[in-house]
Amino acid sequence: MIDLATRVYNHTWKIDPIVRSLLDTDFYKLLMAQTILRRHRDTRVTFGIQNRSRSVRLADFVDEGELREQLDHARSLRLSRGESTWLRGNAFYGRRRMFSAEFIEWLESFRLPEYELEARDGQYVLTFHGPWVETTMWEVPALAILNELRSRGVLRGLAKFELQVLYARAMTRVWEKIERLRPLPDLSIADFGTRRRHGFLWQDWCVEAMSAGLGPRFLGTSNCLIALRREVEAVGTNAHELPMVYAALAEDDAALAEAPYDVLRDWQQDYAGNLLVVLPDTYGTTGFLAHAPDWMTAWTGMRIDSKEPIEGGEEAIAWWRERGSDPRTKLAIFSDGLDIEGIERIHAHFHGRIRIGYGWGTLLTNDFRGLVPGAGLDPISIVCKVIEANGRPAVKISDNPTKAIGPAEEIARYQRVFGTGGQVAAPVLV
Amino acid sequence: MIDLATRVYNHTWKIDPIVRSLLDTDFYKLLMAQTILRRHRDTRVTFGIQNRSRSVRLADFVDEGELREQLDHARSLRLSRGESTWLRGNAFYGRRRMFSAEFIEWLESFRLPEYELEARDGQYVLTFHGPWVETTMWEVPALAILNELRSRGVLRGLAKFELQVLYARAMTRVWEKIERLRPLPDLSIADFGTRRRHGFLWQDWCVEAMSAGLGPRFLGTSNCLIALRREVEAVGTNAHELPMVYAALAEDDAALAEAPYDVLRDWQQDYAGNLLVVLPDTYGTTGFLAHAPDWMTAWTGMRIDSKEPIEGGEEAIAWWRERGSDPRTKLAIFSDGLDIEGIERIHAHFHGRIRIGYGWGTLLTNDFRGLVPGAGLDPISIVCKVIEANGRPAVKISDNPTKAIGPAEEIARYQRVFGTGGQVAAPVLV
Repeated sequence: MIDLATRVYNHTWKIDPIVRSLLDTDFYKLLMAQTILRRHRDTRVTFGIQNRSRSVRLADFVDEGELREQLDHARSLRLSRGESTWLRGNAFYGRRRMFSAEFIEWLESFRLPEYELEARDGQYVLTFHGPWVETTMWEVPALAILNELRSRGVLRGLAKFELQVLYARAMTRVWEKIERLRPLPDLSIADFGTRRRHGFLWQDWCVEAMSAGLGPRFLGTSNCLIALRREVEAVGTNAHELPMVYAALAEDDAALAEAPYDVLRDWQQDYAGNLLVVLPDTYGTTGFLAHAPDWMTAWTGMRIDSKEPIEGGEEAIAWWRERGSDPRTKLAIFSDGLDIEGIERIHAHFHGRIRIGYGWGTLLTNDFRGLVPGAGLDPISIVCKVIEANGRPAVKISDNPTKAIGPAEEIARYQRVFGTGGQVAAPVLV
Repeated sequence: MIDLATRVYNHTWKIDPIVRSLLDTDFYKLLMAQTILRRHRDTRVTFGIQNRSRSVRLADFVDEGELREQLDHARSLRLSRGESTWLRGNAFYGRRRMFSAEFIEWLESFRLPEYELEARDGQYVLTFHGPWVETTMWEVPALAILNELRSRGVLRGLAKFELQVLYARAMTRVWEKIERLRPLPDLSIADFGTRRRHGFLWQDWCVEAMSAGLGPRFLGTSNCLIALRREVEAVGTNAHELPMVYAALAEDDAALAEAPYDVLRDWQQDYAGNLLVVLPDTYGTTGFLAHAPDWMTAWTGMRIDSKEPIEGGEEAIAWWRERGSDPRTKLAIFSDGLDIEGIERIHAHFHGRIRIGYGWGTLLTNDFRGLVPGAGLDPISIVCKVIEANGRPAVKISDNPTKAIGPAEEIARYQRVFGTGGQVAAPVLV
């Protein structure tokens, strides 16, 4: 029997919304937003989309009208009562009341701010101006919308049957990866794949697969909405935007040199335990560790992001040892462009020497490589980054020059201040 | 929104029927039944199930009560009005009115006859006694029921998610086989997989996959119900039961020696064109061809079944040449335990030398090997064969002694009459 009501209701949809909840975002955006609201409420920051995969001309197959419809739909979203209840009542990282009443009230009245969009040279120039705490909330939904619109564009020409086989293959691929993960001892892995996911439903399926296949070795998902619905942990800590804005706001070179540590000072007042994970690479890991204050050894761990993971992990171990910490008590989180081979390699190298966590992103939730002819569904390296703060340019150097962001003269200044040099560029897949 | 009516209706099901239509059978059963009805209406024949995969103890994990329910349900089926209309109105092998009014009227009032069932040594002894035209109709549904009950039994313990991954993998596997078929020049392939299918819905999916992946190179399906619903060709010709019963009924050795050719004499009065495909191996291909009448060269082709396919094809070519026919105008149909490697090998060997057709059975519609631990879903070599006709034992020798059927002393007599000897036993996978 056909449910006529559902059938007719479905015909009234104007669009098929990609982002349907303000919680369809990464957990660390909420942690950071709370810190920003508390400490930098008046800071104005511009975020902008950058597609590092220049060869993929997004504007050629993502319609601007559709993109605007999706962005406008995201702007219409409000935190629902049940979502608010979850933020207030749920335990995150084993701790209740992670979010202050002030923050949740702010979030209850929040809506995504305006955006600026134009197509230029086959790419979309998509920027967000306004209070930092508002513009920061665009990063994940904007990226998820662009990535899913691209998937939809590529898949539009496929017949129903071809789609079924495509998803059967993609499911098989994810499951085979999960089966390869199973034998890794003391595995702890989370989904970090919201922003570059193939689509929302696909990320949701991947989370279910990880949960079914790995049990407690699957730590949880960065996606708050999926964490809420699937009753798994919401996970994540913080991102480069914090040191980038702190650095941009620094009044002189001395303040600039101190900015990355100021971030940590503020963060450890707001959070504790497994949320105290240092992200050391914004202006080069080596210099950051060399000048780090001793109290940073009290932090739980370090996220190894843009540096080659074995090298980055060894550097972290050496630093902990040098500062008198036992690396086996410390947590290293690997999260940069991971796929199964990389995870196996890292695990073989570091297991038993440090506690290891994996934040598996794009190649968990968007590995459709080779499932359509050509590179049509290969993931692209698209990011949404801070461009300026209170009118001053924002800069990122990282351990991989391919990921550097900012005006050339500012990059030179930062390199001088942070003693960054001799880095080797590595290609960025995702 | 939930369709409450459907939900409540679903709760009223007593069983989930495996065979839901009298047309959920192979097309060749209808062709043979028409010939039997016309010529052998009073012949009484016993069919019996034989599981050649003795190590798989079906009675251990197929519940007898459930088996009876399914068989009883099949006995409750009647030809529907739409099904009758299809048989009357549809063109088969390019020809309308393939079935006589007399036959369709008989089928409209037909129901499957009684069965005898007991469990013995871990196997089911399932036999059908009665008029040949009735008992012959049990072969395919009985096998389909046993095979699907086995699949269900094995899958019962799996979680919903594990099932989804299992079917994703099975779909991927079928599709990869289809992709390997695509480059074969002048391919013509049909689904012969009803009897040993994993399940009805899975066979239906496989037919859709073949149709979507191969277009006109997919000739059709042996399954009448799927042919009707999917609007593809229903295909098939005849089986060993015809010569087996004709031989059993022979009054003396001379009549026995002539019986296989009597089948052809009758058949060519009833059918024409691509339905004139000789099945030469019932009592050994070599002797059958040596003594074949010259008029058999007028037949369209030959089915290479129990003989090693390259050898069998070469033997057919040699025979056509010897009798003055151009093999390139003749059709060889390969149908024994085919899988993709065998098809590729046969095609590489014979393409351009004869017209080739493939009847792809078990390893199209039931290749779940390795998708559960152990051999739980490996296909089994289960058959439903003529045991006796009018009280006389039925015998099959074939080109592979592993497939021989009948009492030892009768096999010896047949071997003497047909000059069958020196055959090499080959293992039977499916």
